[in-house]
Amino acid sequence: MSHHGDAAPSGHWGPPYLLYLGNPADDLAIKTARGVAYWRPDWCVGQYRHPDCRLTLGLPDMDMAQARACGARTMLIGTANAGGTMAAEIVADAIAALDAGLNVVAGLHHKLRSHPDIAAAAQRNGRTLFDARDPAPGIPVGNGRPRAGRRLLTVGTDCSVGKMYTTLALERAMQRRGLAADFRATGQTGIFVAGAGVPIDAVVADFISGGAEWISPARDDGGWDLIEGQGSLFHPSYAGVSLGLLHGSQPDALVLCHEPTRRHMRGLPHYPIPELKPCLEANLAAARLTNPAVRAVGVALNTSAMPAAEAEALCRQIGQELGLPCQDPVTMGVDAIVDHLLACFAN
Amino acid sequence: MSHHGDAAPSGHWGPPYLLYLGNPADDLAIKTARGVAYWRPDWCVGQYRHPDCRLTLGLPDMDMAQARACGARTMLIGTANAGGTMAAEIVADAIAALDAGLNVVAGLHHKLRSHPDIAAAAQRNGRTLFDARDPAPGIPVGNGRPRAGRRLLTVGTDCSVGKMYTTLALERAMQRRGLAADFRATGQTGIFVAGAGVPIDAVVADFISGGAEWISPARDDGGWDLIEGQGSLFHPSYAGVSLGLLHGSQPDALVLCHEPTRRHMRGLPHYPIPELKPCLEANLAAARLTNPAVRAVGVALNTSAMPAAEAEALCRQIGQELGLPCQDPVTMGVDAIVDHLLACFAN
Repeated sequence: MSHHGDAAPSGHWGPPYLLYLGNPADDLAIKTARGVAYWRPDWCVGQYRHPDCRLTLGLPDMDMAQARACGARTMLIGTANAGGTMAAEIVADAIAALDAGLNVVAGLHHKLRSHPDIAAAAQRNGRTLFDARDPAPGIPVGNGRPRAGRRLLTVGTDCSVGKMYTTLALERAMQRRGLAADFRATGQTGIFVAGAGVPIDAVVADFISGGAEWISPARDDGGWDLIEGQGSLFHPSYAGVSLGLLHGSQPDALVLCHEPTRRHMRGLPHYPIPELKPCLEANLAAARLTNPAVRAVGVALNTSAMPAAEAEALCRQIGQELGLPCQDPVTMGVDAIVDHLLACFAN
Repeated sequence: MSHHGDAAPSGHWGPPYLLYLGNPADDLAIKTARGVAYWRPDWCVGQYRHPDCRLTLGLPDMDMAQARACGARTMLIGTANAGGTMAAEIVADAIAALDAGLNVVAGLHHKLRSHPDIAAAAQRNGRTLFDARDPAPGIPVGNGRPRAGRRLLTVGTDCSVGKMYTTLALERAMQRRGLAADFRATGQTGIFVAGAGVPIDAVVADFISGGAEWISPARDDGGWDLIEGQGSLFHPSYAGVSLGLLHGSQPDALVLCHEPTRRHMRGLPHYPIPELKPCLEANLAAARLTNPAVRAVGVALNTSAMPAAEAEALCRQIGQELGLPCQDPVTMGVDAIVDHLLACFAN
């Protein structure tokens, strides 16, 4: 990861991390912890799990005191659930971590600092709480004014289909080629990985596009801002976030992300996954409002639930159908997508 | 207004109202007070103006003590300041109203209850403060599940083109025909007029569609929920709010609202107003995600800046072009739109 702009987050809450898994409902519930472990392994000393937790990140199991003894500075609560509510056991574990001398960071809608017992535990131990879903103050209303620099945004057929992984893979691949390229985080996992960003689904609704403008300001070094997408224009719960992010990003390039084995929109069994081509076209049409020159440069599939040969065949098929490079960023890399991006914006 | 579902707001802050004008910069600054005075005249006992205020709502002028003696229960601060800050004189007047025994309600960005002197005055007088831009707690994430009942949503080419007036005019016209029809408020003025609602541009971004579902729950009386639209899918600052509201409303019927003399998107001189037909089509396409049977039933023009003959001609022209009834709700009523709505949903 040596090429990355991956300086540890400033302030008191940074790594090394103890990654909190608790007792998650399913693998998607620990995607924040998994993302940090995957993209910033050097920052993670261990994982904390309840006895009946059957999931693992492959890190050493330890409790809060052991983690502190191993050099952990902060416990990162990576558990996510719809709406971001905080279970009683998470409250108790956060307090135990503070009492063990760790800072605690989380990305839930319910704030750590809003819970009186957690706030009291932080104060009595002189520890720091950080809620990644707390937007920085002062985000303005979006103004839609064209700005310098090039921006790529990942968009998706659904939530949780690999937009952050794709964006970080693009950053890594472009930086390895010596290009100026910076990941811009819009979700809690991305913020923990990047050490900065705007939790775009947590801003006040009037400020969604303004938040996107704020994290990807004008740049004149010829480099790219690679903006982490959120949700999907076709997800009935969250499409407003996706549209504001699309407008505020003013993307020059879109990469469409998809999980081919997904049977329905996440959390909504009554909603089918959109077809790739109309989904991409709807994103391009909406993006043209603030950047008429926007174009699609690739498709990224999350094929982790498929045999490798099937995944390769599907990438070829989708690539031919859409006339775009199609890869799984984790198993195949993103070099074909970067090649096409650079060819599209050669001059 | 006797046909209306206009029960006074519950809780301690309801009408009768003293409408606060203070010393407004221009007519736009008193649009909340004007809207309440227009749609709920029976709730308004008077207006409070500073000596050099040249604007009027045509209500009796009175100070706070006189208003209290005339039966007013609550002072409604409808002033919108440049920058949304609370001027020192508004703070002083709010305190004077509380000391005179009135409750105080407002729809400013800065909350009444966040100002220590106002909060102290409310407490020492046993009065209530209410900020219309504070969403109620407990709004869930949208689920997109089809629900019983019929819903109409107003959508717009831009912000501030008459969506609230159109929606309230539809409520009045339908109630006069003996139909069950209820205005559902999504902005501060609408909330004061209806006595309830969700300030949809002030919810956390993840909850936009959930807020829309929350204010228009399933109904089985054969009646209509008439939902106040916000912003525009084509406004680069606020389109996310508009899309989430569109998805959460699951509208059966759309009415497109437009201000024909508007030269550019509100606040954004570099963005043109969209054409009516593609604007309507984009709204219908997006609405089909949660209600595939959605249809357009009318166009509402705000022609207040045009001569009457020109307005009539324009309504005829647009009505023919779009194949829909087109009226100015304030000067022409909305009967043709209601006729078409009922014809479309006759069975």
